[in-house]
Amino acid sequence: MPTDRNRILVDSVKRLLRRGATSHLSKIVNKAHAADLSVLFRSLSLAEQRKLFNMIADVVQKGILFSELDEDTFQDLIEDMRIEDIVHILESMPADDVADIIGRLPEERSKTILEKMQKAESEEVEGLLRYDDDTAGGIMVPDFIALKEDATAGQAIASLQKEHSDVEMPFYLYVVDEYGKLVGVSSLRQLVVVPPGTQLKDFMATDVVSVQTDMDQEEVARIVARYDILAVPVVDGTNRLVGIVTVDDVIDIIRKEATEDILKMAGAGEEFVETKSILKSTRIRLPWLFASCIGGIVAFFIIGKFEDSLLKFAYLAAFIPVIMGMGGNIGTQSSTIVVRGLATGRLSARDIWPVVLKELSIGVILGLVYGLLIGSVAQFRYSMLMLALAVTLAVISSMSIAALVGSLVPMGFARVNIDPAVATGPLVTTAIDIISVSFYFLIATTLLGI
Amino acid sequence: MPTDRNRILVDSVKRLLRRGATSHLSKIVNKAHAADLSVLFRSLSLAEQRKLFNMIADVVQKGILFSELDEDTFQDLIEDMRIEDIVHILESMPADDVADIIGRLPEERSKTILEKMQKAESEEVEGLLRYDDDTAGGIMVPDFIALKEDATAGQAIASLQKEHSDVEMPFYLYVVDEYGKLVGVSSLRQLVVVPPGTQLKDFMATDVVSVQTDMDQEEVARIVARYDILAVPVVDGTNRLVGIVTVDDVIDIIRKEATEDILKMAGAGEEFVETKSILKSTRIRLPWLFASCIGGIVAFFIIGKFEDSLLKFAYLAAFIPVIMGMGGNIGTQSSTIVVRGLATGRLSARDIWPVVLKELSIGVILGLVYGLLIGSVAQFRYSMLMLALAVTLAVISSMSIAALVGSLVPMGFARVNIDPAVATGPLVTTAIDIISVSFYFLIATTLLGI
Repeated sequence: MPTDRNRILVDSVKRLLRRGATSHLSKIVNKAHAADLSVLFRSLSLAEQRKLFNMIADVVQKGILFSELDEDTFQDLIEDMRIEDIVHILESMPADDVADIIGRLPEERSKTILEKMQKAESEEVEGLLRYDDDTAGGIMVPDFIALKEDATAGQAIASLQKEHSDVEMPFYLYVVDEYGKLVGVSSLRQLVVVPPGTQLKDFMATDVVSVQTDMDQEEVARIVARYDILAVPVVDGTNRLVGIVTVDDVIDIIRKEATEDILKMAGAGEEFVETKSILKSTRIRLPWLFASCIGGIVAFFIIGKFEDSLLKFAYLAAFIPVIMGMGGNIGTQSSTIVVRGLATGRLSARDIWPVVLKELSIGVILGLVYGLLIGSVAQFRYSMLMLALAVTLAVISSMSIAALVGSLVPMGFARVNIDPAVATGPLVTTAIDIISVSFYFLIATTLLGI
Repeated sequence: MPTDRNRILVDSVKRLLRRGATSHLSKIVNKAHAADLSVLFRSLSLAEQRKLFNMIADVVQKGILFSELDEDTFQDLIEDMRIEDIVHILESMPADDVADIIGRLPEERSKTILEKMQKAESEEVEGLLRYDDDTAGGIMVPDFIALKEDATAGQAIASLQKEHSDVEMPFYLYVVDEYGKLVGVSSLRQLVVVPPGTQLKDFMATDVVSVQTDMDQEEVARIVARYDILAVPVVDGTNRLVGIVTVDDVIDIIRKEATEDILKMAGAGEEFVETKSILKSTRIRLPWLFASCIGGIVAFFIIGKFEDSLLKFAYLAAFIPVIMGMGGNIGTQSSTIVVRGLATGRLSARDIWPVVLKELSIGVILGLVYGLLIGSVAQFRYSMLMLALAVTLAVISSMSIAALVGSLVPMGFARVNIDPAVATGPLVTTAIDIISVSFYFLIATTLLGI
């Protein structure tokens, strides 16, 4: 298992580093998979990382490691590297990964690097940099196999052996017309199975699923996932084939987007911060807590208005936590279901009213159940029917409103094309807190006549 | 864009259903991709679903739809279908998808179906049913290409054209020894590129990444994602090749596991419930709210103990929401980061102390910032230094403890191999609520001498 394998790798490398066993270390880093090395690097100091990195002989291995490393680790690692060495490594990498890295470097540095790269390479990279990071154009690779429809299977195999030997994922052969427009697709497998003289147009599929360069990467990922394909062709506005997005990049997108959504919902930034320093993590998390701080202070001033009532009926305070908690938790359920449903395509933003209505119904039912339960506890403890009634009503209204707000806010955001994940978490919770507390005190003081 | 495409599909199918335009409908369902049909089916009534399903001519198309449908929709759809028709469709499907479906049917029904299936097919399915659903064995397909190491590239291509024409994803050719043990791997691409007379052992890679049948599917998905491969071979305890897990299934797993984690953290069950009926959704969400209800009632009894203090200093109640809210929100941040870090492999369960210590430090720092801020508001409003001090200390302790509990609980669960996602959400939030309120009243009554 790779977890165990990684543990063994980390432990033995650390031991060898302490002993200064250079030749043994060099053997390990040159044999290990770059994906394993990137995990190893996370557990090492910067000096150790540099030492190991310089031991890697193969420039391709260095390139894979470049694209696998966490952003912070990568930036630290290249800080004192010679620009020529960086360029040499980048030239061995697929253009989309290079574009990714260049896009994150300070502008001055990225310009110098692009100038020093071979012209063909740097043009490919600059071509990709024109597209937004998060679109099909930004994540595609420009290496694909495109053939004319009158080519034969035999010719296709021959071209695969000669011209296209550097293509990353040669599983689909795209067929284009004389203007480079996408007209069909065939698979490497079909190529092998048909007689060599057969023309592509006779066995290609013409119903090709393709995406436009400006399509959002989440949408691209959904398409690849839905149609179970290994790569999707990317076309420009005139249906000209300009690149492909491969399934391995789609997996990365799906995981990254899930992580982003989860973190945003919890109000913990967008990127995974646990590998960053304490101060950096603190800075990222601080502003999100500000929302709930403001909300808490507002609740504080609201409760302050009822100070006289509290002086008469102190036990009113005892119900604040349960009313806030029930509202907060059902609100989180609703908003989480909606945000995830929208992200996976199970819910559509245009179904806003059926979804919100359903959530509201669930909120009312669960509100009744827990309202009566908590009201009974109140009655058991204080034997005051009006108080029990007030608590019951407060729980019902708090839970109903929470389910309503928790579903309406993300659905509404999605409707106007704002990321619904930011709408949940601290913002919705805070709104629900304030509304719950206000309703509770209004209902209680009215019913108890205080 | 498929979202638009689906909208158009749903709208036109509904219009045609109203008009009873059978021949037109039949053309649409037979031309559409099964993945699009499964989305369409979600928007239709059961009667409409049955009508459309019966219009599908191609049994393979029916099979794909079977595996794409939501579980509830599927169960409803097959309820009144003839067993022979179901069997006929299942026989056209890959064995892993059949095993998936059979595993979810009532035992009696699944037995009848297996008995009626062709022997070769049903044996494959029964072979898969022996493994746990969530393991490599449960998700693998038994169709793969395995060749001996002395076979030539030309022979391999020939066997691909004859015997292995039904293999789902023929991108890797696995090489086995005389006992069926996995010794190497080659790609379809290499096969095409080398001279036909070359033996497999001369160009195969011997460093094959493989997984054992009992490996958890999340771990399998991580491996496929990490090494950017299109399929991973599954071996039994003696390294005999028994199946492969393909990348399209891995994508489904990654999405499903992310959804599960998100829903569990929010205390909204495990499966996506929005497509279920209101009562079903209510039943799934009800028990998770019980935890926070109990927590709220405990907090209620704790506050009840301080009734006398509250009668003297009613404004103590006003700070309950902000102290609970700050603790709850930083606790959610911590537990979310930890749960997601563990799920993606960025954090390892054995690093429990460094991670918890870091979270605690962040909790103390953020506690200081917000404690002083909220304390200042208290001082501004009531001009009582001891009250302000109590509020400040309560916020600091609430936030520090929340960050500690929020990280320690999921790390601890992961350490003893319990799913950390269930540990967050309602359970952690409730614990934090109770601790926060208790500390606040203890600190306040001590400092104010009441």
